[in-house]
Amino acid sequence: MIKLITDYSGIDDLDVMVYQSRVSKIHNNLIGEDTYSENLGWFDYPNTISEKEIEKIETYSEEIVKNSDVLIVIGTGGSYIGSRSVIEALKYNFYYQIYEDSKIPKIYFLGYNLSDSYVEDLLKVLENKEVSVNVISKSGSTIETVLAYTVIEEFMKKKYGDSYKDRVYITTSMTSGPLRELAIREGIKSLDIPNKIGGRYSVLTPVGLLAMAVSGINIRKVLKGASEQISLLESAELTENPAYLYAVMRNILYKNGKQIELLVTYEPKLRFFSEWWQQLFAESEGKDGKGLFPTYAFFSTDLHSLGQIIQDGKRNLFETVLMINESDSKVRIENIDEVFGRYSSLEGKNIGDINKMVFESTIAAHSENGIPNIILEVKRLDEERIGALIYFFLRAVSMSGILLGVNPFNQPGVEIYKRKLRERFK
Amino acid sequence: MIKLITDYSGIDDLDVMVYQSRVSKIHNNLIGEDTYSENLGWFDYPNTISEKEIEKIETYSEEIVKNSDVLIVIGTGGSYIGSRSVIEALKYNFYYQIYEDSKIPKIYFLGYNLSDSYVEDLLKVLENKEVSVNVISKSGSTIETVLAYTVIEEFMKKKYGDSYKDRVYITTSMTSGPLRELAIREGIKSLDIPNKIGGRYSVLTPVGLLAMAVSGINIRKVLKGASEQISLLESAELTENPAYLYAVMRNILYKNGKQIELLVTYEPKLRFFSEWWQQLFAESEGKDGKGLFPTYAFFSTDLHSLGQIIQDGKRNLFETVLMINESDSKVRIENIDEVFGRYSSLEGKNIGDINKMVFESTIAAHSENGIPNIILEVKRLDEERIGALIYFFLRAVSMSGILLGVNPFNQPGVEIYKRKLRERFK
Repeated sequence: MIKLITDYSGIDDLDVMVYQSRVSKIHNNLIGEDTYSENLGWFDYPNTISEKEIEKIETYSEEIVKNSDVLIVIGTGGSYIGSRSVIEALKYNFYYQIYEDSKIPKIYFLGYNLSDSYVEDLLKVLENKEVSVNVISKSGSTIETVLAYTVIEEFMKKKYGDSYKDRVYITTSMTSGPLRELAIREGIKSLDIPNKIGGRYSVLTPVGLLAMAVSGINIRKVLKGASEQISLLESAELTENPAYLYAVMRNILYKNGKQIELLVTYEPKLRFFSEWWQQLFAESEGKDGKGLFPTYAFFSTDLHSLGQIIQDGKRNLFETVLMINESDSKVRIENIDEVFGRYSSLEGKNIGDINKMVFESTIAAHSENGIPNIILEVKRLDEERIGALIYFFLRAVSMSGILLGVNPFNQPGVEIYKRKLRERFK
Repeated sequence: MIKLITDYSGIDDLDVMVYQSRVSKIHNNLIGEDTYSENLGWFDYPNTISEKEIEKIETYSEEIVKNSDVLIVIGTGGSYIGSRSVIEALKYNFYYQIYEDSKIPKIYFLGYNLSDSYVEDLLKVLENKEVSVNVISKSGSTIETVLAYTVIEEFMKKKYGDSYKDRVYITTSMTSGPLRELAIREGIKSLDIPNKIGGRYSVLTPVGLLAMAVSGINIRKVLKGASEQISLLESAELTENPAYLYAVMRNILYKNGKQIELLVTYEPKLRFFSEWWQQLFAESEGKDGKGLFPTYAFFSTDLHSLGQIIQDGKRNLFETVLMINESDSKVRIENIDEVFGRYSSLEGKNIGDINKMVFESTIAAHSENGIPNIILEVKRLDEERIGALIYFFLRAVSMSGILLGVNPFNQPGVEIYKRKLRERFK
């Protein structure tokens, strides 16, 4: 489902293979749930999520679709970017426009910022709309989430009186925290975030699944794609496990002095998926003074800008290209005006074919210049494949982090700013 | 208008002042238009653009607003990101939603990618809409732009017959190139890109101004803000010229081994402005094996993800925080539920005030940990200030590039992929 092409990486097979015994050992540790047993809830979750839980998500989703023009999803960090990335990747490029006349609720995200103007503008958008709310926080006390919920709760109470509760869905720890308390006290519907799954590993749990379902995505297919990916990554052998191979290649490039990994996509609708990928790798690996800095670029526009620094700047980066190889290209170039004579050979070609030529030219230009390129090829963007891609990266980052010598499941650095902030509240 | 706060940069004043004589010399070179005379058309453009040119842009804009539901802006790189960044920054966070019922045309961008699905989806959005087109390329032969125009021209001919020409606006070199030829041959309305202004320096010319005007932005105010900024940056003294001071600070941090500059904003609507800033600095400085890698983060959500690597990863980055200090905050936090007791002291505060607390906590957490922070403070996002900000960065990057020892106005690396691509066309 996901093909890893190593030809342009500049990495020697022998350098990869010396990692095999370490990789096998870490793999056994992961499947044995030994060292990291408190953090591996995501490992088999697509296989073990219960039919009852899926049905509950689907029921809530149907309810929301039936009685809402808008779903507000309140969350930040891992409780925000996952579902947004999948929805924007799978639903159209012009999601909000194409949906204008449709019955499917528009989904707006809140709580991922504390911008006054953002909140104000959202409240304007909500005027005269039927609204439901999904508030997501594992701890149940994330500050941005609590503040956003406080604003929206007031809005909902004004609009719906006491029955506002029927339009709220809480996704939080199954056992504790203020949001769980609130759900119990008020009888608000809720979904569980399993205890052993951290925020950035949670997109394939109810955290991400409810909003996906509301947007019209078939979440069973997303989970199926992830499950299939679990089988495909069963072996610890680097020749058979592309997620581990990707992790090893990143480690080799890091040790060779690379400081930046640039995720390259050619699809504008992968903008938020790139952000999801960035936060997954940054938060999992960026600790103890270590870690590649993960960032992203959108080709072809960035070939006209960032392209300069990639080609010709410091030799401190490599590219990971996520190439979607859609085969069902439909937009043909007909009748190029004669003033554009130099392009006349492109007449009759599809846009997708030309995109592939740009991709190939770029790989050639960059790799000939010594910029390592790792290529991940996927046939198309659909529900199964996005589930597979997510799971692929979850497995890759956990292997990669452990190879780097850090704990890929904690985030001690995030806590420091939170502590500083709490001091100011007193 | 733009305040540069240096207190958290960790840079000593004395280290800055040793740059003064070099900066003064470069400044004289820039105002004398000596070494770079072929690339300094942007330097005084906000002061020298003619009343006639502004009126022409306004006339075209009124025409488009009057007879269109949609304006398609076709361009890539510098012909794309500038106007998009200003429109998204100044118009609302939910631009396309708030505008649903308004008479102002929605603006869609095309040609910045070669994604089949993007083009297909856009064509769907255009069904039953009245459409105008602004196609932008200085050379008049940028491949993505030509291909996108070819697709849209066909659509327009089908829809409007020969009168499609009345709905096309060409922005290109005043003297040469295929788009200029096309404009002359077909009698299509056109705007001039002055010869001495490169793509990434062109947002305050007709390249960016027409789309801005159509979106309802007062372009005279944008130009006025830029003009005022020119006066504010008249002196070469580092104590009086914050753009040069910013350039010097970047250079010091680069020499101290920093590899990455992270532009931090707290406003989601500055997403594309961050991209504009990135391409400006990457393309101007990333050459001859040199240059900081410019990238960006959106707080507060990224404090829950990238925050980890900033706080605790490799010591290879610094932050430039673009802080919008809106004073007219309106959204108050009322009645925090008692389950969220720890936040009760925030009751009665505005979201904007709390955002400021997050900003201060973050600066403290990061700078105490040795992460240099340069702060750019702006009172609010409005037309004058966005014009000022753009001009500020244009001046900063030209000083910064020359200090680095590169030519900030060329882009030899971009040409390599273009050459490779052309070879494939034969």
